[in-house]
Amino acid sequence: MLQWWHRLFPSTERFVMQDATEELRELLAGIADLERARRVLSWDQSTKMPPRGADARARQIATLADVTHERFVAPRTGELIAAAEREVAQLPGESVTARVVAKARWLYDKDVRVPTALVSERARAASDGYRVWLAARAADDFSAFAPVLERNFALARQYAACFDEYADPYDAVLDDYMPGMTDATLSALFGELRGELVPLVDALAGRPIDTAPLTAAFSVEAQRGLVAEVLGWLGFDPSGWRLDDTAHPFQSSFSGGDVRLTTRFEPDYFPTSLYGAMHECGHGLYEAGIAPELERTPLGSIYSLAMHESQSRMWENMVGRSRAFCDALAPVLAARSDGALRGLDGAALFRAVNAVRPSLIRIEADETTYSLHVILRHELERSLMRGELAVADLPEAWNSGMRDYLGVVVPSDADGVMQDVHWGQGLIGYFPSYAVGNLIGGQIWERVRGALPGLDEQLRQHDLRALREWLSDQIYRHGSAFSDAELLARIAGAPLRVAPFVRYLRGKLGEVYGVELA
Amino acid sequence: MLQWWHRLFPSTERFVMQDATEELRELLAGIADLERARRVLSWDQSTKMPPRGADARARQIATLADVTHERFVAPRTGELIAAAEREVAQLPGESVTARVVAKARWLYDKDVRVPTALVSERARAASDGYRVWLAARAADDFSAFAPVLERNFALARQYAACFDEYADPYDAVLDDYMPGMTDATLSALFGELRGELVPLVDALAGRPIDTAPLTAAFSVEAQRGLVAEVLGWLGFDPSGWRLDDTAHPFQSSFSGGDVRLTTRFEPDYFPTSLYGAMHECGHGLYEAGIAPELERTPLGSIYSLAMHESQSRMWENMVGRSRAFCDALAPVLAARSDGALRGLDGAALFRAVNAVRPSLIRIEADETTYSLHVILRHELERSLMRGELAVADLPEAWNSGMRDYLGVVVPSDADGVMQDVHWGQGLIGYFPSYAVGNLIGGQIWERVRGALPGLDEQLRQHDLRALREWLSDQIYRHGSAFSDAELLARIAGAPLRVAPFVRYLRGKLGEVYGVELA
Repeated sequence: MLQWWHRLFPSTERFVMQDATEELRELLAGIADLERARRVLSWDQSTKMPPRGADARARQIATLADVTHERFVAPRTGELIAAAEREVAQLPGESVTARVVAKARWLYDKDVRVPTALVSERARAASDGYRVWLAARAADDFSAFAPVLERNFALARQYAACFDEYADPYDAVLDDYMPGMTDATLSALFGELRGELVPLVDALAGRPIDTAPLTAAFSVEAQRGLVAEVLGWLGFDPSGWRLDDTAHPFQSSFSGGDVRLTTRFEPDYFPTSLYGAMHECGHGLYEAGIAPELERTPLGSIYSLAMHESQSRMWENMVGRSRAFCDALAPVLAARSDGALRGLDGAALFRAVNAVRPSLIRIEADETTYSLHVILRHELERSLMRGELAVADLPEAWNSGMRDYLGVVVPSDADGVMQDVHWGQGLIGYFPSYAVGNLIGGQIWERVRGALPGLDEQLRQHDLRALREWLSDQIYRHGSAFSDAELLARIAGAPLRVAPFVRYLRGKLGEVYGVELA
Repeated sequence: MLQWWHRLFPSTERFVMQDATEELRELLAGIADLERARRVLSWDQSTKMPPRGADARARQIATLADVTHERFVAPRTGELIAAAEREVAQLPGESVTARVVAKARWLYDKDVRVPTALVSERARAASDGYRVWLAARAADDFSAFAPVLERNFALARQYAACFDEYADPYDAVLDDYMPGMTDATLSALFGELRGELVPLVDALAGRPIDTAPLTAAFSVEAQRGLVAEVLGWLGFDPSGWRLDDTAHPFQSSFSGGDVRLTTRFEPDYFPTSLYGAMHECGHGLYEAGIAPELERTPLGSIYSLAMHESQSRMWENMVGRSRAFCDALAPVLAARSDGALRGLDGAALFRAVNAVRPSLIRIEADETTYSLHVILRHELERSLMRGELAVADLPEAWNSGMRDYLGVVVPSDADGVMQDVHWGQGLIGYFPSYAVGNLIGGQIWERVRGALPGLDEQLRQHDLRALREWLSDQIYRHGSAFSDAELLARIAGAPLRVAPFVRYLRGKLGEVYGVELA
């Protein structure tokens, strides 16, 4: 890890810091600590906290958000950034110190415009919303959830109003998850993607594929063993990682040596736990792979959620659902399923896990229909954000979108509009990053294929070291030193495109269905 | 709970707050949130964190300590306290608002004298020390642990030096755990207690008691069931409590509805997990019992560790090792031990769990020898603090003290001077509170006995409601609204005394050994 760092950033540069830069670095390190502390409280809230702890926890998280924001937007920070900018002016643009200062400037100029009271209120609403969402979903009661949506979208609009450079309030929230992304770009990409996917789904959804292996009897205890074994292949290491149960899987890292994954176990449906864990592990590999020297700087986290999702979805789908990796998985599934999957082979597993099956739940969707779930959410949250759709009308809009895009009838709001935690936690503008992640993943995966000609054989042996090292070297170690556009230019030599992902998908589905799609 | 509150504090008073008092209350609520947040990080560190997360966590905890201290000692706090003092001047002395302000004054005057850098360094040293202690104890390597002790005692002396009103630096640290306690008072009490205990132990230690039930085969899984059942009797409620495993048991509460207990399971020695869990549950009942209206005020925590320990040790020993409660425990032990304790009766269990057996490990010591372990630690930490004993000479001093007070030969530093986490975490001046807790417990237990004539029958039925309610009403709900001396005066009508605890002990041991000791 240290080696990569030195290869990219000359070591001398770390010694040119001057007074303001050094004081700024200290201040930013404290801010990073407070942000990680808040992650610990949120992780605990979702995995360990007894239910009656919720009210106090919401307040504690809000206070931490408050204090962190207050410290960061204090006038002293602005002075230090300005002074540091003068100190680093002679450094080259790709200098890490210069990039730390530039990132601090970007964050400061953004954060200083948001009142602390609003930051605090959004954090409180997120915690409250999580709890209400859990109960409302369990009771299938949208009317209990609606006030949470009203509050969170109203707060998101208040937040957007802090930035007068956005004509569209939705662009303001998009920018938080994918800096620089606008709805104009996104709509064009998603329009093209939808144009490719809808006929593809239409052509394949009716064709027979045996998906019985996915619903074979598989106890939760046996699934725990399966998940532990497969995560071990990916690089999960108990000395620096944990896996816990939760209602809605997520990844959170508190440092490079403390990565937390969660997954959900569903009896007799192993894909939920297995692919959920692989997805979160992809996030974890990214965060654990950031160069230690970037830790406690604003470059020590991920630049965009889209790049983050490109990696989680790459490990879940491009690795986990590949023909070669299915050869590695099949015997383990056979051995761990108490005989239910005896004799399962890689080819059958490959077909089952890639079957195109329009369905209700996004996180259980196959790789092909998945992006259509996201495109629906994109359209709905944009309309809610712009005030073009009322919360009360959301369930109907949801249900009709599911019919139109996927031909799916939604039987209940619990498995419909309330299936995801995001809006309940105030994460508005977040969903599109999943599908953008697919697109980025498609572009990167083509380069992975070119760079690692022995990859299929390695996947078959579940030897993932070369892949992990390539991704770490090309992507992970950089943290957010590069923008998505810069990284894509370095790796793929192109801006964000739809075609590579579609090519990848057509290639795989052709093999699954034994038809010519390319 | 609300009722008690209203009985004690007239509801009108909560409406007389004026501007400064209200702003102070807000500020103190934020401080309370940050302190609870730090507890969450510490709890996670000791129960869930993967080992490689330790360095970053130490920094995160230090930063939180830092930020909390900085906020509290800011000049604005001092101004608000002064203004609030004027506003509440017309309230009666027992007014809760007046007491909140007075407590804030006491804390402020104390904290403002400690530099933030020292607070931060002590927090970092505590986290580092915990990790080193774990490794050094596992390796039985005192030389690895010694630098931690040097650092922590040096920092404690620096801390004491911030307070020039203490001639003895040890008094300065005692005051943090038992406000108002001095070593002069403590030495007199402990001298009297030692004078009672040493001949008592001497007289009884050689007498035969069948302790074989304690070491009966008892799997960890079976112990988990036992502990869950017994904690349920005490009031452990999964909607607001958790129990986790840890190396060194502790309790931590993040709010009245989020109480965390930990315990340690030792195969084939159930008292470690059972009585450890009852001990921590006593702490938890105290913190969960604080009136909700005191939450997020400086009165929403416990006044002294001594009062806290009086309750943990009361539930562990005065309840858990009573003749009557042993009648409730015996059949459960018999049923849950896979036949190993079949036919165990309450009388045999009572004798076994109260046998006087001088031994190595404090947390496994019987109730009679326990205070002698504490008295030794008191003398050693005082000498270290005053610079009268060098860290290098500590193991020998420890071992010779164990020989002199308990007749025990210490075979290794791991089971000797490194058995406890306290000094490693910088908790200096903490140990004495355990034995003072025994004394307070003795005084309160006499009043419990007087107030609840049906107690033995209730204990036999493991119906602990009346006891819990009495303790909540007399002690728990008040948080730190009263000092220990005030509470003892209210409950026992007397200052801290040794005699009641010794009377209680002699009474019980007379029954255990069938001799006249009173």
